[in-house]
Amino acid sequence: MPSFTVQEKRDLAALVASRQPGHGLPGGFYSNDTVYRAEMENIWRRGWLFVGHTCEIAKPGDYVTFAVGNDSLIVIRGDDGRINALWNVCRHRGTQICSEPRGRAGRLVCPYHQWTYARDGSLVSCRGMQEDIDKSQLGLLRAQVREVAGLIYVSLSDNPPDFEQAAEAIEPFARPQGLDRAKVAKIVDYDVAANWKIVWENNRECYHCNVNHPQYIKANFDHYNADDTSERVSARISQAVARSEEKWAAAGLAVSHRQSGMAQFPDAERNCWYSVNRTPLVEGYVSETMDGRQVAPLMGDYSDADVGTLRIRTLPNMWLHASCDHAVTTRLLPTGLQRTAVRVTWLVHRDAVEGRDYRLADIVPFWQLTSEQDWALCGQAQKGVNSSHYVPGPFSTYKEYNVDSFVRWCLQQLSREQGAGGRE
Amino acid sequence: MPSFTVQEKRDLAALVASRQPGHGLPGGFYSNDTVYRAEMENIWRRGWLFVGHTCEIAKPGDYVTFAVGNDSLIVIRGDDGRINALWNVCRHRGTQICSEPRGRAGRLVCPYHQWTYARDGSLVSCRGMQEDIDKSQLGLLRAQVREVAGLIYVSLSDNPPDFEQAAEAIEPFARPQGLDRAKVAKIVDYDVAANWKIVWENNRECYHCNVNHPQYIKANFDHYNADDTSERVSARISQAVARSEEKWAAAGLAVSHRQSGMAQFPDAERNCWYSVNRTPLVEGYVSETMDGRQVAPLMGDYSDADVGTLRIRTLPNMWLHASCDHAVTTRLLPTGLQRTAVRVTWLVHRDAVEGRDYRLADIVPFWQLTSEQDWALCGQAQKGVNSSHYVPGPFSTYKEYNVDSFVRWCLQQLSREQGAGGRE
Amino acid sequence: MPSFTVQEKRDLAALVASRQPGHGLPGGFYSNDTVYRAEMENIWRRGWLFVGHTCEIAKPGDYVTFAVGNDSLIVIRGDDGRINALWNVCRHRGTQICSEPRGRAGRLVCPYHQWTYARDGSLVSCRGMQEDIDKSQLGLLRAQVREVAGLIYVSLSDNPPDFEQAAEAIEPFARPQGLDRAKVAKIVDYDVAANWKIVWENNRECYHCNVNHPQYIKANFDHYNADDTSERVSARISQAVARSEEKWAAAGLAVSHRQSGMAQFPDAERNCWYSVNRTPLVEGYVSETMDGRQVAPLMGDYSDADVGTLRIRTLPNMWLHASCDHAVTTRLLPTGLQRTAVRVTWLVHRDAVEGRDYRLADIVPFWQLTSEQDWALCGQAQKGVNSSHYVPGPFSTYKEYNVDSFVRWCLQQLSREQGAGGRE
Repeated sequence: MPSFTVQEKRDLAALVASRQPGHGLPGGFYSNDTVYRAEMENIWRRGWLFVGHTCEIAKPGDYVTFAVGNDSLIVIRGDDGRINALWNVCRHRGTQICSEPRGRAGRLVCPYHQWTYARDGSLVSCRGMQEDIDKSQLGLLRAQVREVAGLIYVSLSDNPPDFEQAAEAIEPFARPQGLDRAKVAKIVDYDVAANWKIVWENNRECYHCNVNHPQYIKANFDHYNADDTSERVSARISQAVARSEEKWAAAGLAVSHRQSGMAQFPDAERNCWYSVNRTPLVEGYVSETMDGRQVAPLMGDYSDADVGTLRIRTLPNMWLHASCDHAVTTRLLPTGLQRTAVRVTWLVHRDAVEGRDYRLADIVPFWQLTSEQDWALCGQAQKGVNSSHYVPGPFSTYKEYNVDSFVRWCLQQLSREQGAGGRE
Repeated sequence: MPSFTVQEKRDLAALVASRQPGHGLPGGFYSNDTVYRAEMENIWRRGWLFVGHTCEIAKPGDYVTFAVGNDSLIVIRGDDGRINALWNVCRHRGTQICSEPRGRAGRLVCPYHQWTYARDGSLVSCRGMQEDIDKSQLGLLRAQVREVAGLIYVSLSDNPPDFEQAAEAIEPFARPQGLDRAKVAKIVDYDVAANWKIVWENNRECYHCNVNHPQYIKANFDHYNADDTSERVSARISQAVARSEEKWAAAGLAVSHRQSGMAQFPDAERNCWYSVNRTPLVEGYVSETMDGRQVAPLMGDYSDADVGTLRIRTLPNMWLHASCDHAVTTRLLPTGLQRTAVRVTWLVHRDAVEGRDYRLADIVPFWQLTSEQDWALCGQAQKGVNSSHYVPGPFSTYKEYNVDSFVRWCLQQLSREQGAGGRE
Repeated sequence: MPSFTVQEKRDLAALVASRQPGHGLPGGFYSNDTVYRAEMENIWRRGWLFVGHTCEIAKPGDYVTFAVGNDSLIVIRGDDGRINALWNVCRHRGTQICSEPRGRAGRLVCPYHQWTYARDGSLVSCRGMQEDIDKSQLGLLRAQVREVAGLIYVSLSDNPPDFEQAAEAIEPFARPQGLDRAKVAKIVDYDVAANWKIVWENNRECYHCNVNHPQYIKANFDHYNADDTSERVSARISQAVARSEEKWAAAGLAVSHRQSGMAQFPDAERNCWYSVNRTPLVEGYVSETMDGRQVAPLMGDYSDADVGTLRIRTLPNMWLHASCDHAVTTRLLPTGLQRTAVRVTWLVHRDAVEGRDYRLADIVPFWQLTSEQDWALCGQAQKGVNSSHYVPGPFSTYKEYNVDSFVRWCLQQLSREQGAGGRE
């Protein structure tokens, strides 16, 4: 378990204090092992981590394993239909029980000495042990688990932040999308050569979109900002909002982001780790696809393709972009100080049949291209901030306000360790 | 050379003290660098390490190199027929002299500047050096080396534990096996993804055998224990013992393990690092082979195939299983905190000719399968104990008494560093 | 940025003090991370590092990147024809700007948000930033850069050692070679499994040449030393010197090394990091080629092939061997404690055309073979000094005087950190 010496705490506090307002993080935040350990403790082992989708474990006994550093959880649907998050560690000799990324299990049997656990983790049998063993004390340890609108979250902490506020915010926006009535169409895993914060900093601004994301900018307005939203663009946005509001009212959908630029997130001042919004796409686009057309059956409750785009973000490890016909989640997991495992998952309606109702070649390229463009930039950014001569530069107040918020949110989390920190 | 700060010694002592009797070792024993360094110092660089077989270096000049961490020894047969263990480091600029795993050398010549050493390590020539060099002071450094019954051991320590007691115990049991009149039939090297202690803990119980070792349990009785030795099994064992005692008496072989369960080893209370025994195989089996039949010429002094199985174990790095017709040694060498190099060597009678007298396909599978089944389990165990939520569980008093002894033996060795330790 | 605790400084000082005069460095110098960090700080991040050749960046906009540890420089020819060394780190978010090893750029454009810099590093544009940004303060940071006789050097320090003395010493010897009027014929990159000092120690003696460098010893005299320079060899050297002096006088070339053995370098007492000399080759050899014949057009100002061989060495990272028709530079860069990236570059006259005027098969083998023979020895040496039983041995006073000087030079550089150090 991580712990910090007095000197390490002082060094961390000094590093936190050294950040100049409105500027990037000092280099140590991306290359210092103590920072990484502190982030693991204060952010990753404390907050709510997105695991995957309820549709991935639809039936009792379906499970996925979920690895964070040296830890692994078995996230399994129980006989009662509820999801259990069990530490993947046999209570006998500590052996890892499930080694596959996903599967279906009647009971969880340790491969070493066949200690056998039910789907809720309780120890059912342990042949060969002495008679006075108390099986009731030797069930698999349980982690916190929650779901909202088809998204599964766990926390490695016994005292995680409140989840209900997040669920109440996300649920009404996400419900019509039908993420809980979806199926996985495609998963792509990436090994990104950058610290996890660099991946978020990339995600939190569209300053880099113009040149780097030719596909993305055709469908969205958020690369325009106060400095470059011309009257013509402004008019296009207003028209899109007006058009959407009229249509969506009937369907119970709300336009929650009505201007150029990205929706504000995170809200560092309120220490808010989640956000959700729905916003129109560019006229002519009903889906984040290469040509903007619908490429799969409508998801969820939608009866019309023109539902704009739904966005959900939860720190520290998930964002979602959903269109009328498909949804895409991006999940981050740090695998080292300068290494992040990223999983991108495409969802469609659970009844849609590949080949008949949709083709992967229509659904996947938009976010595969956009993702890979970003991972390359993240790698370049990591290399640069590793330099002894990296000096954090100024953020654009027009375009990088969310990066600034993200940076402040991170500093708050790290300050908690030093006793000077925020409250939930 | 390893050394420990006051804080590291305290941390080690606390970790040692934290182990609960009858339970597995706390996770730090498998993942903490200080523990690893302490084990290297107190166990691996102090005790007797099995190198290989005298038959591998039968003639003067034959040598094998033996690597432990960054160290390498040349184990070479001298002109007088005795085995020398020489540090593989030129006394001039420190260059490694022999880089091959085995070979034959008239003299040992450093490839860099051709300093030349005799087979006993003495410096013979060093062209180009000033006249006042004292060659007698510049021979290769020598390490301790011993042999018993065809097995070669070295110690990296100048004050190793007593070897003679071990030799006296092993010699009478091993002599009839003729390990010194053998030849190597096959060597397989493995890179096991587990701490060396996990490999021993696996070796010290047969609780895992029933499901994991279908081949092994057909030939042996030791997976039966007090809790599951039925009357029928008990009768089979008694019959096997009785049958063997009668036959073996004439041949001077003794039955030294007469019941179900594994022979007790190590004896932590007496700090004993070696053991040897002979025990019957299951009726119908005269060799640890797939079908129990003899598959090579009888070894050593044997005149009948029914000699049961000979077992030798020496901590920290060797065990042997021998049948009438072949012997198998398993040699461990830690290559990191969670990595162990394992070499399995099959021996047959030195006059046996492959293809004519035996086929590798008959000799190798039994222990190759059994070994590989174990390495997979060890890897799973290592993954599990790395978890932040690993809690050491109770050992089975029926089946894991030797694992408990092994754990206590390790704790004793580590305690020596803190000055609270045992004596040899 | 590296810094050292009080304990680390003490440990370093103790290690420095532990070296016995006339003997090799203790093992810690090749395996201790603190030593490596101290060398990075006191030697590599302070001194002048050879980058490459002016002919590699002949025209404005031509650049090479140059990596030292986590740092990268863009070495680019400016519009004014002068060479700029710019830190390869965008002043906005710190992104690495140039990721290719070489190229040609009108302007340096960061791939992330397109901040755009001129060839001298000044910030030309940063679309999207607020109006009060002071572009004059956000140019790329500049490193020290110098050139001498076609060789480019940089220093990562703001207070590097004096360069002019070195330039004044090197220039008159190197000018006739025409390195600034050359072209690159071939580059070979090596990853050598040894500490950078082991590579230099290998370079600083020819004691190892007799057996290991069959090609090299046919062309040169420097493997002969006071102990083995026979009268016949002595006469050959005198004849070669006499013959050369007569011919070279007319061409303004000087014989600066007139005896057997290698020219003395480094001069630890005067803390001198550079040297240059010209010396005859063996009779019948006019070039360091497999058969000694000229294999490419004469370089520079030469009008006759008999110009002996020009040698330049600059610590910590370059040596050069030049013949009448080609030149070879060897550049070292540490990539870890026991890992050195070595680049060997062959140069010919800039007007020489491959296939017509020269063939790589004639030019490359002599130094490719000699280099690779050395890298293998360096790897063996590193393995040996890693041993717990490595004891530094005596240097040959006949043959290893330069290794002894190099070792003392290194110790001086390290002592600077402890406040007991030398001055430039």
